[in-house]
Amino acid sequence: MSWLDLLLGRPLASDAERQQRIGPAAGVPIFGLDALSSAAYGPEAALTVLLPLGVTGLRFALPISLVIIVLLLLVYSSYRQTIAAYPGGGGAYTVAHQNLGAGAGLLAAAALMIDYVLNVAVGISAGVGALISALPSLQPHTLGLCLAILALLAIINLRGVREPGLAFMAPTYVFVACLMVVMVWGAFKALLASGHPHPVVPPPRPPDPREALSVWLLIKAFASGCTAMTGVEAVSNGVPAFREPVVPLARRTLTVIIVMLIGLLAGIAFLVVPLQIGATEPGQAGYESVLSQVTGAVAGKGLFYYVTITSIVLVLCLSANTSFADFPRVCRVVAQDGYLPYWFAMRGRRLVYASGMYVLTALSGALLLLFGGVTDRLIPLFAVGAFLAFTLSQAGMVAHWRKSAEHGAGFRQLVNGIGMIGTCLTLGVVLVAKFTAGAWLIVLVIPCLLMLMLAVRRHYRQIAKETLSPAPLELAQVSAPLVVVPLEQWDRTAKKALQLALSLSPEVHVLHIASDEECSTLPKQWHEFAEAPAQQCGLPGPKLVVLQSPYRMVVTPILQYVQELEQQHPDRSIAVVVPELIEPHWYYAFLHNQRAKVLKALLLLREHHRIVIVTVPWYLESE
Amino acid sequence: MSWLDLLLGRPLASDAERQQRIGPAAGVPIFGLDALSSAAYGPEAALTVLLPLGVTGLRFALPISLVIIVLLLLVYSSYRQTIAAYPGGGGAYTVAHQNLGAGAGLLAAAALMIDYVLNVAVGISAGVGALISALPSLQPHTLGLCLAILALLAIINLRGVREPGLAFMAPTYVFVACLMVVMVWGAFKALLASGHPHPVVPPPRPPDPREALSVWLLIKAFASGCTAMTGVEAVSNGVPAFREPVVPLARRTLTVIIVMLIGLLAGIAFLVVPLQIGATEPGQAGYESVLSQVTGAVAGKGLFYYVTITSIVLVLCLSANTSFADFPRVCRVVAQDGYLPYWFAMRGRRLVYASGMYVLTALSGALLLLFGGVTDRLIPLFAVGAFLAFTLSQAGMVAHWRKSAEHGAGFRQLVNGIGMIGTCLTLGVVLVAKFTAGAWLIVLVIPCLLMLMLAVRRHYRQIAKETLSPAPLELAQVSAPLVVVPLEQWDRTAKKALQLALSLSPEVHVLHIASDEECSTLPKQWHEFAEAPAQQCGLPGPKLVVLQSPYRMVVTPILQYVQELEQQHPDRSIAVVVPELIEPHWYYAFLHNQRAKVLKALLLLREHHRIVIVTVPWYLESE
Repeated sequence: MSWLDLLLGRPLASDAERQQRIGPAAGVPIFGLDALSSAAYGPEAALTVLLPLGVTGLRFALPISLVIIVLLLLVYSSYRQTIAAYPGGGGAYTVAHQNLGAGAGLLAAAALMIDYVLNVAVGISAGVGALISALPSLQPHTLGLCLAILALLAIINLRGVREPGLAFMAPTYVFVACLMVVMVWGAFKALLASGHPHPVVPPPRPPDPREALSVWLLIKAFASGCTAMTGVEAVSNGVPAFREPVVPLARRTLTVIIVMLIGLLAGIAFLVVPLQIGATEPGQAGYESVLSQVTGAVAGKGLFYYVTITSIVLVLCLSANTSFADFPRVCRVVAQDGYLPYWFAMRGRRLVYASGMYVLTALSGALLLLFGGVTDRLIPLFAVGAFLAFTLSQAGMVAHWRKSAEHGAGFRQLVNGIGMIGTCLTLGVVLVAKFTAGAWLIVLVIPCLLMLMLAVRRHYRQIAKETLSPAPLELAQVSAPLVVVPLEQWDRTAKKALQLALSLSPEVHVLHIASDEECSTLPKQWHEFAEAPAQQCGLPGPKLVVLQSPYRMVVTPILQYVQELEQQHPDRSIAVVVPELIEPHWYYAFLHNQRAKVLKALLLLREHHRIVIVTVPWYLESE
Repeated sequence: MSWLDLLLGRPLASDAERQQRIGPAAGVPIFGLDALSSAAYGPEAALTVLLPLGVTGLRFALPISLVIIVLLLLVYSSYRQTIAAYPGGGGAYTVAHQNLGAGAGLLAAAALMIDYVLNVAVGISAGVGALISALPSLQPHTLGLCLAILALLAIINLRGVREPGLAFMAPTYVFVACLMVVMVWGAFKALLASGHPHPVVPPPRPPDPREALSVWLLIKAFASGCTAMTGVEAVSNGVPAFREPVVPLARRTLTVIIVMLIGLLAGIAFLVVPLQIGATEPGQAGYESVLSQVTGAVAGKGLFYYVTITSIVLVLCLSANTSFADFPRVCRVVAQDGYLPYWFAMRGRRLVYASGMYVLTALSGALLLLFGGVTDRLIPLFAVGAFLAFTLSQAGMVAHWRKSAEHGAGFRQLVNGIGMIGTCLTLGVVLVAKFTAGAWLIVLVIPCLLMLMLAVRRHYRQIAKETLSPAPLELAQVSAPLVVVPLEQWDRTAKKALQLALSLSPEVHVLHIASDEECSTLPKQWHEFAEAPAQQCGLPGPKLVVLQSPYRMVVTPILQYVQELEQQHPDRSIAVVVPELIEPHWYYAFLHNQRAKVLKALLLLREHHRIVIVTVPWYLESE
């Protein structure tokens, strides 16, 4: 059992794919962590924007949350239909590609891919941030912790489809259960106290108002709160991961996730007003997250509080898992259409799309390194990708229903149309509100990614055009090739190369570079060592060609000779036989001049269409 | 004319070597800059050690300098004889190797190689240091200036043997001339004033004594002053660079260098006492170098002063040139004996040993980068290598004369014996005095280098043992190889590979990996596209072997098949024909899975002694 088997598990045979599929119980932790963790930061983000309004700001928490919940329901109904209509997965990319054309599909794919890379960096960094605010002594290890969690996520996901479901089930359900208890308990207390409950641990007093109410502020609060919606698309991208019956199970998973998320969002919005809980200034002394305040106010800071907070930190850290579930699957679907390198569509040793996971790990790891594990500045970039994908997905579904003759298609078109308008408006709001804070970067990156994908496709087409040939072999001119063997001296490597050359063709040209500094012995030995034995076997003796090289070049004269030979024999292929010493260790490379490798590389680069290269290895015995 | 021709000059033919040789006028700047620049820092180093004695310390400057000059004369006479006895160059290495055995030779070579690398770093950094103390605004560019000078030296030396002689002639002779004028003028003034000349610009008052006189302090001053002797060996290492008559010209060059050096050392030692000039505390406000004080005191700080100081700075910067002249030559001689990679002995485009220059530039550049261009801490390491080489060289000459029957051999043996004892004692003093300051590092590095050189030689011997074969070709079993062609699909690349395979041998096995995910069309097309056309031409149809791969491996099943084939046919060679797509740009590599390269690399690594690899390139037309 190798260390790779130990780390990633033994390879799985291709026919084991069915046993790897999952149901809703594992589907929620695999696809839902991004969405559910949003409950921890979405409302907080909106309340932070409302901070300058003081106590007055809290009045707007409930209406903003309600608008977000309505939007969420529209998007949910759209993705429910997408799952049924496109059970092959790929979500927004597939819907937009099929109904609106390749451009729209690629736009959605680019948006999703960027969104997923950012989600990994931001999710892990937010989780580690929460951990550090609980245990400040970990501060110097921020980046190390981030990278360790990234590595853990990558390894668990590389182990197969089912593994993250099993590994992350406990924290996910503990998180949801704890928060649900807080919500219900809090609501019960509020009802009992006729809307004025007494907090167990009183939250910090909201600051005095510093700004007047403005529509712009409310719009910004809404745009920030919309981060709560990211991750809703996750299930639609990975439908083929579910076991039979695929569509109902995937839909049920999505429904469970959305019901939980709406419960949490509504609960938080409903509790902050009576408990008078606002955001606290982030990054300053006395900062406490909204969920921590709510839990403390409802249940006090006992054992239950610490279990809840621990589960929140874990879920934040693990929210990146959704990206690991979806990024490789989106890349796979796009690669199958030829817009990304085709190895994205190849299954790895555990039947997952391992290449996509490597690329995701590398890109998000680079972001974490670049920002030292503190990715606050990336958060504004985050919602743009998601809402662009939402909008394109809804628009695609509108087009889908328009073409459909199915019963109820008109009503569904209406629902998706409203959803499209809603998410499109939200996209506009988010873009305008966050443009200067960094969203402009997305506006630059997406077209670049788009052009890259189109170039990839163009290149693959070009290759296909040049190489495809549905015609039989032409064998009119099959004759043995002309063989060229460059030799430096007479030794066992030379003999092996020459034996092989004579077995390939009767016409062998041996090239020898005359060196001024030492007089070379090869020409003197030639007749006795090479010509005579060949003639005894009835073969024409190999021809020795001594090349002069006044400028001490070795490779160039060989290249020139081969080129002349190619021109003189327009109907022959030419095999250059290169003897190569294979050393037992890589560092012995410094002891040789690597002429064989240079010669081979240059022969390949020069576009000699009729030249093939024959490597004849000679193995040194290991010392 | 390419940019390389412009930078380094057009390639020189091997027979142009004679015209590249030099005489004494160019030999002094090429081989003498290290020795001559010593006059600028040797006396200063000794006086700095004497600083704690105050004015009393100056009394010892003259005796210490006299001892150093006597030692210098002994070493000079030794190297004069070495030049005549070993006109092939290689200096201490050759002498020790021939007379004392390979171990002593390699010890001398290792000492010299380390010495030369340190000399480049320390020389350039000292020159830039002097420049910066004159123009403090250059301080932030220290490292950049060091690397720029290193690059300049490397380029000028790569341009050929003569180039540095021409380029550095002016600064060298201006430096010597100016300092000679100072010495003679100062001596004249001192005589006129009966030993108590009045300085034009009075030097700073020597500090009050802080320490009592001790033998240990004098020994340390002597050890520091001995740095003035480094570079004396330079000519002996590069004798073959001189034109005919080689030995007299090389000797004359050495004599000129030594006469100039002794003149400068004696002049400085003679002038500091009457002018009351001591060292100033380095790195502190009011620091002024000894040569600057002497020049100012004798000639005032006018135009002449600035010309002199500029030439000193230039010569310090260029003192590294001696390393560029000698390091490649020492490496070449050692490489010719098989103790270093043989490419050290190959001449580059301008007939110099370019590889040695690249290695020297890389190593000393790394030192400069590591120390940020301030290499003060390396200075203690510096003299150890030189004196170890001196001692071994003298010891070798003693052994040489002992064996010689030449007239006067006895007297010469005595001179070299005294020289050996002197330099050996000095080596001991330097080692003890500077051990804790860093000389211990040399004691560690030299054995490592020694072991490395012995390992290189052992490896080359092993290769020779395994490959040398002064016997004719054996051709008993020349039969066409078995040919294996792995194919993924039917396209032009496959057709080209198959055509070539059929031209090499009638027995062709085509390997195809069955993929579960898509049903492959190759087996269905096989008869029509491949077998039928081959049979029509009278060839046996190539055999299609479909390999199952439940774990989606592609390369492993091919390797296994080839291995089995090799075992089944113990008397055949097997040619694996690999079709390879050659892309016009390197970055297209990301779009392919590089299976051809992986397959070829693994085939070579597995030590299949009877397998050869045939690369059949397919060129995409440039877009």
